[in-house]
Amino acid sequence: MKHARIRFEGQNHAVTVEAHNAVRLADGRLLTEDQVQWLPPATGSMFALGLNYADHAAELAFKPPTEPLVFIKSPGTYTGHNQETWRPDNVAYMHYECELVAVIGKAARNVKREDALGYLAGYTVCNDYAIRDYLENYYRPNLRVKNRDATTPVGPWIVDVTDVADPSNLKLRTWINGQLRQEGSTKDMIFDIPYLIEYLSSFMTLQPGDMIATGTPEGLADVVPGDEVIVEVEGVGRLVNHIVSEAEFFASRKEA
Amino acid sequence: MKHARIRFEGQNHAVTVEAHNAVRLADGRLLTEDQVQWLPPATGSMFALGLNYADHAAELAFKPPTEPLVFIKSPGTYTGHNQETWRPDNVAYMHYECELVAVIGKAARNVKREDALGYLAGYTVCNDYAIRDYLENYYRPNLRVKNRDATTPVGPWIVDVTDVADPSNLKLRTWINGQLRQEGSTKDMIFDIPYLIEYLSSFMTLQPGDMIATGTPEGLADVVPGDEVIVEVEGVGRLVNHIVSEAEFFASRKEA
Repeated sequence: MKHARIRFEGQNHAVTVEAHNAVRLADGRLLTEDQVQWLPPATGSMFALGLNYADHAAELAFKPPTEPLVFIKSPGTYTGHNQETWRPDNVAYMHYECELVAVIGKAARNVKREDALGYLAGYTVCNDYAIRDYLENYYRPNLRVKNRDATTPVGPWIVDVTDVADPSNLKLRTWINGQLRQEGSTKDMIFDIPYLIEYLSSFMTLQPGDMIATGTPEGLADVVPGDEVIVEVEGVGRLVNHIVSEAEFFASRKEA
Repeated sequence: MKHARIRFEGQNHAVTVEAHNAVRLADGRLLTEDQVQWLPPATGSMFALGLNYADHAAELAFKPPTEPLVFIKSPGTYTGHNQETWRPDNVAYMHYECELVAVIGKAARNVKREDALGYLAGYTVCNDYAIRDYLENYYRPNLRVKNRDATTPVGPWIVDVTDVADPSNLKLRTWINGQLRQEGSTKDMIFDIPYLIEYLSSFMTLQPGDMIATGTPEGLADVVPGDEVIVEVEGVGRLVNHIVSEAEFFASRKEA
């Protein structure tokens, strides 16, 4: 089953998602995908992996890490399916990053990898855009690269753990304006989801609603205002996003 | 005025703090400091500065940064005044870090330094403990160093902006078991609070309840179970914390 959070007629709703992405409200009403504003399906902390695919690390001319390279994103950077993201003025590179996201369902501390999937609410997708200009090097996941407002689309929904047969064998694909630009598989992750849950929970408690964004494979390219960017993880979801200019984005926020 | 969040008789309360740290509930009841459980006074994201005092950077053998070195902490690492913090088993160094914290009061985007203090709810204090073992280098504020459960005491309260004449001229002091071990002044910050608000808000929106932890001066030392650690920022607050072992900490959490 698929679970989402949407906004409709001025109120937030927890919904389930049915055929053709129709959403079912708790009161039974069924709405089409375009009638609602999609919100990020979880709102906890996001623990994001850097360089978790060897081919992507090579593409950025880095050695693959020997321990997970994890940084935290704050909720102000999340946005939902079908929403707008902005390209800052005066930057040279804005790269999409298609990623599988594991969403925590219950408090996880000292969890072993064989039990790890039992602590998940399910999976979702994110596009972990990077303003690559400022990533001076391997060690500093700079806030200017990864934490701007609404530059991390997440969603559209959380799909139940039991609906994904093998999270370590899913295709990842990104299209810009309908053209396939990035293709990979979660089988090429350096640190897989059970490992990451064991690792993180060995020194901190993961809380319900927290997310682990598991990194992206190679195939980066620049995006510009006007682009439609779709990231898809096989069997999990297809997340659509539109790039606008900085001026356009903040003008529309003022109106809202 | 001082504003705090406390837990009393199974409920959370927003309170004001009066003489001798007595807390006034909304219904007028006055409770002593020891009758209540002190909670972190804010619960937004914490944007924490690394190496923001030149003497401390030198102490760790780093060059001072030329741009703020900022990392995010997640709320699971916060705890309150008079609470316990744990020292992990099998680590070589657990260092206190006395820090002045600016708490955001209203959404801040593209704020100029001359207007910056108008966006604050006020100031608080934190002890940004570091498990120094894993800080492999300058660029990686590793989660194992800075994001363990309840290893960032914050509080006791937020003091109003207007009650602090000059946030750039406050004494910082840390005592272990009554002995003064760290002493500095916020005048030695490399990047001051107005600068940090201008910098962060130039590329992201700071939200009410978000915190900026402004870094610590030199004077680090190791702490061990049994230690009482007090960090104080002149005119803001005095934050007390007790170190226990890993086993003791998690045993008491299970009971709670």
